[in-house]
Amino acid sequence: MTKMTEIKGNIASPKGFVADATHAELKFQKLDMGVILSEVPAAVAGVFTTNKVSAAPVKLDKTVVAGGVAQAIIVNSAIANAVTGEEGLINAKKTQRLLAEKFDLDAKHVAVCSTGVIGKQLPMDKIALGISKLSATNGHSDGFSEAILTTDLVKKEIVYQVELGGEVVTVAGVCKGSGMIHPNMATMLGFITTDAKIAQPLLQEILSEVIEVTFNQITVDGDTSTNDTVLVLANGQAGNAEITADTADYDGFKAVLAAVCQTLAKKIAADGEGATKLIEVNVTGAPDELSARMIAKHIVGSSLVKTAIFGADPNWGRVISAIGQVAPFEVPDIELEIQSDLVLLHSTPVDFDQAELSEKLKEKIVVIDVELNNGDKSGTAWGCDLTYKYVEINALYHS
Amino acid sequence: MTKMTEIKGNIASPKGFVADATHAELKFQKLDMGVILSEVPAAVAGVFTTNKVSAAPVKLDKTVVAGGVAQAIIVNSAIANAVTGEEGLINAKKTQRLLAEKFDLDAKHVAVCSTGVIGKQLPMDKIALGISKLSATNGHSDGFSEAILTTDLVKKEIVYQVELGGEVVTVAGVCKGSGMIHPNMATMLGFITTDAKIAQPLLQEILSEVIEVTFNQITVDGDTSTNDTVLVLANGQAGNAEITADTADYDGFKAVLAAVCQTLAKKIAADGEGATKLIEVNVTGAPDELSARMIAKHIVGSSLVKTAIFGADPNWGRVISAIGQVAPFEVPDIELEIQSDLVLLHSTPVDFDQAELSEKLKEKIVVIDVELNNGDKSGTAWGCDLTYKYVEINALYHS
Repeated sequence: MTKMTEIKGNIASPKGFVADATHAELKFQKLDMGVILSEVPAAVAGVFTTNKVSAAPVKLDKTVVAGGVAQAIIVNSAIANAVTGEEGLINAKKTQRLLAEKFDLDAKHVAVCSTGVIGKQLPMDKIALGISKLSATNGHSDGFSEAILTTDLVKKEIVYQVELGGEVVTVAGVCKGSGMIHPNMATMLGFITTDAKIAQPLLQEILSEVIEVTFNQITVDGDTSTNDTVLVLANGQAGNAEITADTADYDGFKAVLAAVCQTLAKKIAADGEGATKLIEVNVTGAPDELSARMIAKHIVGSSLVKTAIFGADPNWGRVISAIGQVAPFEVPDIELEIQSDLVLLHSTPVDFDQAELSEKLKEKIVVIDVELNNGDKSGTAWGCDLTYKYVEINALYHS
Repeated sequence: MTKMTEIKGNIASPKGFVADATHAELKFQKLDMGVILSEVPAAVAGVFTTNKVSAAPVKLDKTVVAGGVAQAIIVNSAIANAVTGEEGLINAKKTQRLLAEKFDLDAKHVAVCSTGVIGKQLPMDKIALGISKLSATNGHSDGFSEAILTTDLVKKEIVYQVELGGEVVTVAGVCKGSGMIHPNMATMLGFITTDAKIAQPLLQEILSEVIEVTFNQITVDGDTSTNDTVLVLANGQAGNAEITADTADYDGFKAVLAAVCQTLAKKIAADGEGATKLIEVNVTGAPDELSARMIAKHIVGSSLVKTAIFGADPNWGRVISAIGQVAPFEVPDIELEIQSDLVLLHSTPVDFDQAELSEKLKEKIVVIDVELNNGDKSGTAWGCDLTYKYVEINALYHS
């Protein structure tokens, strides 16, 4: 077990990072542009949407990550720069160049992210204005987490410290996302900075593994977006001995990165559009991890389960129907607990206090535990309830 | 093109069939039990839920269909006899035997279907009472379509006639289902009777193919159920020359069966829980039919698309994001029409009258046409909008 400590801070807490935020006039009054800067070129790893309709900045950032080095991430909200054709790509590249010029960086070390409305071109005069107002003096690093939001109600940020290679290493994460949240990175932007020293290929390997069990295990409405991106910058300024494969430090770093990603993922699920509750589904006793994760995610994504939990109804029938729908094997021996109350044993209903469990379902966090008794692998997924407010937000929002 | 005529009638309209319905006291006052009887043993074909948690009657009916011959279908609503273990299977078999005794049939020629609450045992005294009240004199054949309903708001029935093998052949269909409707047969019961003469293996082959493009292409909330079943009885009483493979009659019979199934499927989608609109999505220009159908179904099942249509918002961004999410190939040249208004050409937004299109989206049927320009295969799917009422129905319904 890696000993890690949560500290107060923000995305600029790891050594050698600064962040800033400003109002580029894309939104009315609110902060709508942010930047993360590393004092030195950093190893960069990234994971992107699997949506075939990927946005211009996603296409651009794939080339940055392929280069292995980055020193800055510039983000705007309000406009996604998605479904914008050639012009969109030109604008993303222009944003990249403007930021590089402003901070005297190599343009190919600048990642560009956008989130917001699909199908509109970036107003480049406003982008230029915003960039001109950004500073590298850590003036408004707390504002970054706000500048990247769209329909989110709360800021989502976490900082952990851990001792690795004889030094204190800090890992900070920030993200946005509340609608269109499903697997595979959905209108979800996540940024992680760390002062750990680690080679890029290993960083990418760890990130890809961690994403599978964290960000890719949340679902709000089953839709994925065109812009989803998670980027990690590791600038080595902690002075730790380089983290290499098959060492305790490797395990420790992976654990802290997983903790950051899991915390952020749960914050996104809890802030799902219209959500009143965070739902966590743990599936154990599966023959393989992939099935366990898939079943957990299918349960937490079921509209019938989500509405039942909104209504505080211990409707276990909907849970086991969801299991049966996707399980790639027979499930004759399911044990099901809702809020720690046993409701099903050997796939057969057991007596439980309906009124008492309904009361427990009014809590802000609902936990469903499924034991399949068919192996020793497990998986967890997170989501939220489906409410009137979700329908209102998405029916009244006009494109 | 097969010439077919819709006629007024019910599931007992084909020659040699009768139907009845009664109140077995499973529901309060309403009809809750129905039977379909053929005068002679009929060829039987069936398609069942793919949910691994299949209900007792599904397990039983698979053996009936495997036998190839059936003469009766007994259906109860209110209780699904699902997740009921050994006792549930014993009760399904007892229901089968009671009906066989009542009408002097071979028990293995009796199919049994149940729909309703999961996890409760059938009260066999009430089942016996209901069966004792059923008659074979066609007394209440119109009541059958009502007796099988659960949360449905309307009865769903259709009868077509077509000339095949020198005789008029009648095909009648009836179904129920409004929630938990997704692919692969979801709390959906469908029954089709026909007086056509056709051998069982061919009937099963045609049914399996037709189901893929009709019932399996509707989605209400993405969940499938434990009990879904479609059964076809063909008793040969029309006196037509037997329908054999690779003939015009084969094509004609398949066309009329498809018309019956498509009509029923659309009725289910339009009556989805809380629905105010039927949504039809046509995908053309795909390299293969499976992809076309999958993309169509994913669009029509997207919560974001469903809420946008509830809100009469021509939010094409959500449609193309849904396409990109599941398309197994690149989609650089999408042409998108909503209610026949072009909104996207070569995957790039075109100007359209937002207010006018929003008005058109207030109609009861919304059609979305997607041309992928990547082949010549097509697929269609049907669904409904996602409304406050859906959340209300599923949050307030208590298990």
